[in-house]
Formats: sequence, C-alpha cells, structure tokens
Amino acid sequence: MAKAVLTITSRNYGAWALRGWLMARLAGLEFTEKVIPPDDPAMKAEMLLLAPSMLVPSLQHDGVKVWDTLAIGEYLHEIRPKAGLLPADIKARAHCRAICGEMHSGFSSLRSSLPMNIKAHFPGFKVWSRAQADIDRVLAIWRECLAASGGPFLFGKAPCMADAMYAPVVTRFATYDIPLDKACAAYSKRILDLPAMREWIAAAKREPDDIDELDAEF
Amino acid sequence: MAKAVLTITSRNYGAWALRGWLMARLAGLEFTEKVIPPDDPAMKAEMLLLAPSMLVPSLQHDGVKVWDTLAIGEYLHEIRPKAGLLPADIKARAHCRAICGEMHSGFSSLRSSLPMNIKAHFPGFKVWSRAQADIDRVLAIWRECLAASGGPFLFGKAPCMADAMYAPVVTRFATYDIPLDKACAAYSKRILDLPAMREWIAAAKREPDDIDELDAEF
Repeated sequence: MAKAVLTITSRNYGAWALRGWLMARLAGLEFTEKVIPPDDPAMKAEMLLLAPSMLVPSLQHDGVKVWDTLAIGEYLHEIRPKAGLLPADIKARAHCRAICGEMHSGFSSLRSSLPMNIKAHFPGFKVWSRAQADIDRVLAIWRECLAASGGPFLFGKAPCMADAMYAPVVTRFATYDIPLDKACAAYSKRILDLPAMREWIAAAKREPDDIDELDAEF
Repeated sequence: MAKAVLTITSRNYGAWALRGWLMARLAGLEFTEKVIPPDDPAMKAEMLLLAPSMLVPSLQHDGVKVWDTLAIGEYLHEIRPKAGLLPADIKARAHCRAICGEMHSGFSSLRSSLPMNIKAHFPGFKVWSRAQADIDRVLAIWRECLAASGGPFLFGKAPCMADAMYAPVVTRFATYDIPLDKACAAYSKRILDLPAMREWIAAAKREPDDIDELDAEF
C-alpha cells in the first residue's frame, strides 16, 4: 500500500493544516507531508480565508483523495476506528460532531481578527466585541465538554477530533493573551503539551516568515 | 421511544433549516417540527449569518440532542444506515463528505450575496465576481459528481447528504436566474421535483413575510 500523503501549508499560519495534520497523527496514520510554499496562490487564498477547502489540507491514501478537514477526520475514523477520533458513545459522538461543526463553519470573527500566528505574542491584545462573543462560546463549549466527560480532554482520557478542531484556537488564545479560567487554562496547557503539538509548534517557530505581502490585504 | 423533534426557522429563508429537514426526510425519520418564529433573536442571527450553528437546525431524538447540519447528517446516517445518506463505497463516501464540507464552511460570497429566498425571482440578477467564483465551483462539483456516479443524483440513483447540502443552492440558482448548462439544469430540476422539496417550497410560498427589518442590517 502506498504511503499516505497529507498536503498542508504554513505551520505558523495554517490553522486548517494543523487540524488535519493533528487528526492524522492522533489516528496513528503514517504519512508524508507535501507542503505548499507560501508564495503559491492556494496558500495566499487560504491565508485570506478565501480558499475553498478543496486544497488544504487534503489527504491521499490508498487510492482515495479526501479534502476538507471534517471529511478527513471522518475518513481517518473509518480507517483507524480504534484510534478514538470519535467518542464510542453515540450521544457523546453526536455532541463531538456538533462542536466540530461549529468550529468548521463558524467563529468567523475569531478567525479573521485573531488569525493563527504561533510565533507571535501580543500581551494585552484588544479583542473586538464580536470576536469576544466567539471566544465566550468556545470557552463555554470547552467547560461543558470537560465537565461532562471528566476530562482531561474534551471527550475523556484521550484527545479526539474535537480537540484537533480546537487546537488552533488554543494557540490563538496564547498568541493574543486571552484570559482563561482555571479549567480552560489547564486544558489549553494539556493541548500545547501533546507531543504532536510540541513538534508542530517547534516547526512553526523555525518557519521563515515571507508572506508579509498578505498584511495589506487583510 | 419519543418522537424526534427538529428545530427549524423560516422555510423561505432558512437554508440550513432546509438542509437538516431534507436530510431527516431522506433518512425516513419520523419527526415533528419546532419552528422558531421570525421575530426570535436566534432567527435574526441566522438570517444575518451570525448564528453559531448551535440552535438551528437541531434535532432531539432518543435522548440525544445534536446540532450543526453535518453532525445531524452523520447522526441520521448512524441511526438509519440503510437510507443511503452516505454512499456505500468508501471512496465515494470520502468524496461526498469533502463536498459537504466545502458547502458547510465555504461559499461565503454566494451565501451572503445570493441569500436563499424561495418566493422571489430576480430575472437577469447581476452576480458579483466573488459570488460567480463560488457558483463556478458549485457547478464544477455537480458536473464532476454526476459524471463519476452516472447520476441522476450527485452520488447515484438516490439523493444523499450531499444533495441535501446543495439543495438550497438549487433554489438560489432559480431565484437569481443563474445560467446553467444542460447537466446542471437537469440536476436542479430533479432536486426541485423531489416530493420533499415540493412540500418545502409550497410551505415557503405560504409563509408570511415579516422579517423586512433585517434588510437594513444586511
């Protein structure tokens, strides 16, 4: 069987890339990475939130090409059902998919005004009110999941698809110095301490920064 | 077992409501509807594309509460696996989820500049260039799926989750008088002719129109 190939973009800015990559890691899939360079039009479109999810991330595996982060997660769950990408209980699984869906289609103010930027740190960053409403909803989701599952991850003892979907938000909260209550701060630390996240973050920090020309268009 | 309850909003304007409702119909689920009235804040937020997908559509069934349209679709597929909401072949299933994901998280220009409005008809409507790019991508998706599956629906002989996800786009193309090639026009007619779609559209046309105050905020 040919090895899987995952197409991603920037490790520092590519929130969708991180989600797909982390899901593939959590699934235990062996894969090689195809990194789209920062000057590629697809990469710019992704950064400007204008890309159809057609290109990044996308996964080629065993004759199947699948794109869109949630579709990749569902595919990984099908080929690696024991990895626990989705909770075993039908009720928890429905809840997990619901909050994955909220992240997938929503939180546009959070995504546009606090873009993922792992290398950066902005102490005292001023949050616009609509982005604050998004932040409040994210924190409510986390608190509810942690309370219902008992933690330490959103749906129990191991990280799942939902933790991967919210992982770029964890990095944003660190970048933009967002105040967190004790439960959410502990959860964030737990995500940042995952070996896969440490590896991703270290690579993001080493990434050359050559997409400055995007700033003017934001 | 208690009967399922599906929460929806406007039949004329509620594109997400239509997707969830059509999926539940395609799954053969018996359900009652809880319709959120047009003056409800949740309804206004939905119309302004500001709602978290938390409220509409949402499904309560057998002790499970599930919201977000894709999560509802996956749940319905789990409880009614023979209804064919997802294709039986793993490759087609991955493709189906990928294009459902594109609709779920993307096409923002199409959604904001050509909002669903079943009652209306705007001959010669001028399409903004970004919305045209969205339209072109939708039509490319349809052509590719119809060619690969042989039709008459996106993934074969019966409508599935993807047809439900794109059904509100079919109504938009009729409302805004979008030129379609032969294959896409035939596909659109097939969707509009589904008994469930005829029922939805007839109800949309009977719906009183009392959300004019939204116009100013668009």
